[in-house]
Amino acid sequence: MIYFNKPHLTGKEYEYIADAVSSKKLSGNGKYTQLCHQYFQEKYNFNKCLLTTSCTDALEMAAILINIQPGDEVIMPSYTFVSTANAFVLRGAKIVFADSMKMNPNMDAEKIEALITPKTKAIVPVHYAGIACDMDKIMALAEKYNLYVIEDAAQAIDSYFIDSKGNRRPLGSIGHLSAFSFHETKNIISGEGGMLVINDQQFAARAEIIWEKGTNRSAFFRGEVDKYGWVDVGSSFLPSEIVAAFLYAQLEQLDAIQSKRIMLWEAYYSGLKSAEEVGLFRIPNIPNYAINNAHMFYIVFNNLEKRSKMIELLKGAAINTVFHYLSLHKSPYYQNKHDGRILEQTDLYSDGVLRLPMYFDLETTDILYTVRTIKEISEGFRS
Amino acid sequence: MIYFNKPHLTGKEYEYIADAVSSKKLSGNGKYTQLCHQYFQEKYNFNKCLLTTSCTDALEMAAILINIQPGDEVIMPSYTFVSTANAFVLRGAKIVFADSMKMNPNMDAEKIEALITPKTKAIVPVHYAGIACDMDKIMALAEKYNLYVIEDAAQAIDSYFIDSKGNRRPLGSIGHLSAFSFHETKNIISGEGGMLVINDQQFAARAEIIWEKGTNRSAFFRGEVDKYGWVDVGSSFLPSEIVAAFLYAQLEQLDAIQSKRIMLWEAYYSGLKSAEEVGLFRIPNIPNYAINNAHMFYIVFNNLEKRSKMIELLKGAAINTVFHYLSLHKSPYYQNKHDGRILEQTDLYSDGVLRLPMYFDLETTDILYTVRTIKEISEGFRS
Repeated sequence: MIYFNKPHLTGKEYEYIADAVSSKKLSGNGKYTQLCHQYFQEKYNFNKCLLTTSCTDALEMAAILINIQPGDEVIMPSYTFVSTANAFVLRGAKIVFADSMKMNPNMDAEKIEALITPKTKAIVPVHYAGIACDMDKIMALAEKYNLYVIEDAAQAIDSYFIDSKGNRRPLGSIGHLSAFSFHETKNIISGEGGMLVINDQQFAARAEIIWEKGTNRSAFFRGEVDKYGWVDVGSSFLPSEIVAAFLYAQLEQLDAIQSKRIMLWEAYYSGLKSAEEVGLFRIPNIPNYAINNAHMFYIVFNNLEKRSKMIELLKGAAINTVFHYLSLHKSPYYQNKHDGRILEQTDLYSDGVLRLPMYFDLETTDILYTVRTIKEISEGFRS
Repeated sequence: MIYFNKPHLTGKEYEYIADAVSSKKLSGNGKYTQLCHQYFQEKYNFNKCLLTTSCTDALEMAAILINIQPGDEVIMPSYTFVSTANAFVLRGAKIVFADSMKMNPNMDAEKIEALITPKTKAIVPVHYAGIACDMDKIMALAEKYNLYVIEDAAQAIDSYFIDSKGNRRPLGSIGHLSAFSFHETKNIISGEGGMLVINDQQFAARAEIIWEKGTNRSAFFRGEVDKYGWVDVGSSFLPSEIVAAFLYAQLEQLDAIQSKRIMLWEAYYSGLKSAEEVGLFRIPNIPNYAINNAHMFYIVFNNLEKRSKMIELLKGAAINTVFHYLSLHKSPYYQNKHDGRILEQTDLYSDGVLRLPMYFDLETTDILYTVRTIKEISEGFRS
């Protein structure tokens, strides 16, 4: 049986949790939280990082930080996880959904400008499968219309965007704020978990306050104020040190994890390249400006029926695959709130994307077997 | 050195985390989350339980569930943790602070009725130190005025209220909704962590949706719907299985933990009873309707100066003690939003409460030393 996902242990997780226990600090913002922050700041040159209990929570922090008010508009793809939208809906925002590209499920930067109104406050690009959105175009629009950009980098750890000057920029370092996920299916995991990245320094002090339940506790522990209290809205966004210790053990192995995943991804890519020519499905199309992190290998069918059939037949061959997002603009919650525009590409991805098994403990032989099985099934579809 | 708090390990935490890893399920709502839910439902007869990443998050879920709208009023004590208020402020509520009792820091049930207006939507009693509020009076008011009661039971696991009919009712089982904490200082810990209890069945289905990011995923996995999607607002309130596995190892030892803590609490109580007569401080006054869980042992000075001096002198004797809440109605964030009423008792507790060391690994000899030292210092104050 080839599972769709299997969480990977690096081996030091328990040792670090035990160390956190023995240091008498298991609540948030202890040694391991700070080690994780430091790791990300140094490796990716992020301005400031704050671990959160989920990527959802990081997005909610972002919505509070940019001071979303009822009626403000936020532009994002419809082909995304529900939290991308919910975080802003909770603050009263109206979500304006942009269609995906033909090339890949990312929002089409060419279609954003037509959606901007005087009420637009932010653009939220989602780097689907860790593949970069066209950040040069999105940042230029944000500057032109004075908007905030919040990168939903849930899947995008260790992915890069090559900007027009040829600079290789880590995803999550480009928008004013960015959100990452360490959910069990991600490259680096803590079961549930996330992180807010604050690239725009204007948000740094308030981010820390909102993170600490609306108090200036962090400033107090740095000796900047002589007592701490309630100074703003906020929540308990910070994870337990148990979670941070687990995460840090994973981060120490990030390079090894990435090498293996990239090898697996390449095996899928080269194996399925020829099958794509059959015309039953497409394989990922990576733009020149994107270096992806092998988070996910997906194929795209041109209709729901074929995808469902493939899932069923692969299951019969002991290979577990899963479909992905249902378009948010057609969801029970939002269909009557959506402005009625047809989002053609989004709907195609909603019906057509199939995610193949992808995790550290997968072996190349598993990939070869999966590739061979997909090819055999495809031949059957054709005949 | 006697620490103020030390997290306690029961010994099975790593084994259960390893088991969660090997079961290939580390994200929320797996085996250990369900074991924790089941434990609480069976032991305390709670209608429905949902683990959360913090008590703060459980309170936020409650605010969403009772559909707080901008301008709604919520009555709660001012002498509480900032999250009690923030959870409702995030939904636009106006907080109406009630004063504490003379007897103990809990909100004075006699003073609530005068604060009820047509805009009042909920009462949030906080069971300070695990000591029950007067729930008969509070529930009667709620019924009379058609209000919701949300118990902030952050500190109140395994505490009880004796109702007017003589029934022993677990705190958290009485209000329409209740919130618990498993923060590192609590009796049962997961570093950060919490739980929402849904006693009023009308909230059960929606609670599960809000918990699962606004999707009907749980219903889908029970086979009640054929696909799941975005059906409501929500957030990622559910904790990692890493956290739930840790918590379950603690819950299995709840009775042993409680026995030890009660013994320690009694040692403080009997040791300091005679010192109370000196008049420098009061010890906890437990109402006849409350059976407390030995969460905290506090003493109350009648002014800030004496408390500060005691903290300093105890520190000199290698005993770490801490003061507690600053009145929320006087906080930088809320002082201009408060209606100006003087909350006399609240202010006294804000200046006067001192929390003594209290945790499972504390020994009776530590308590005897602390009691003796407090008595000696008190004698010095008098002379």
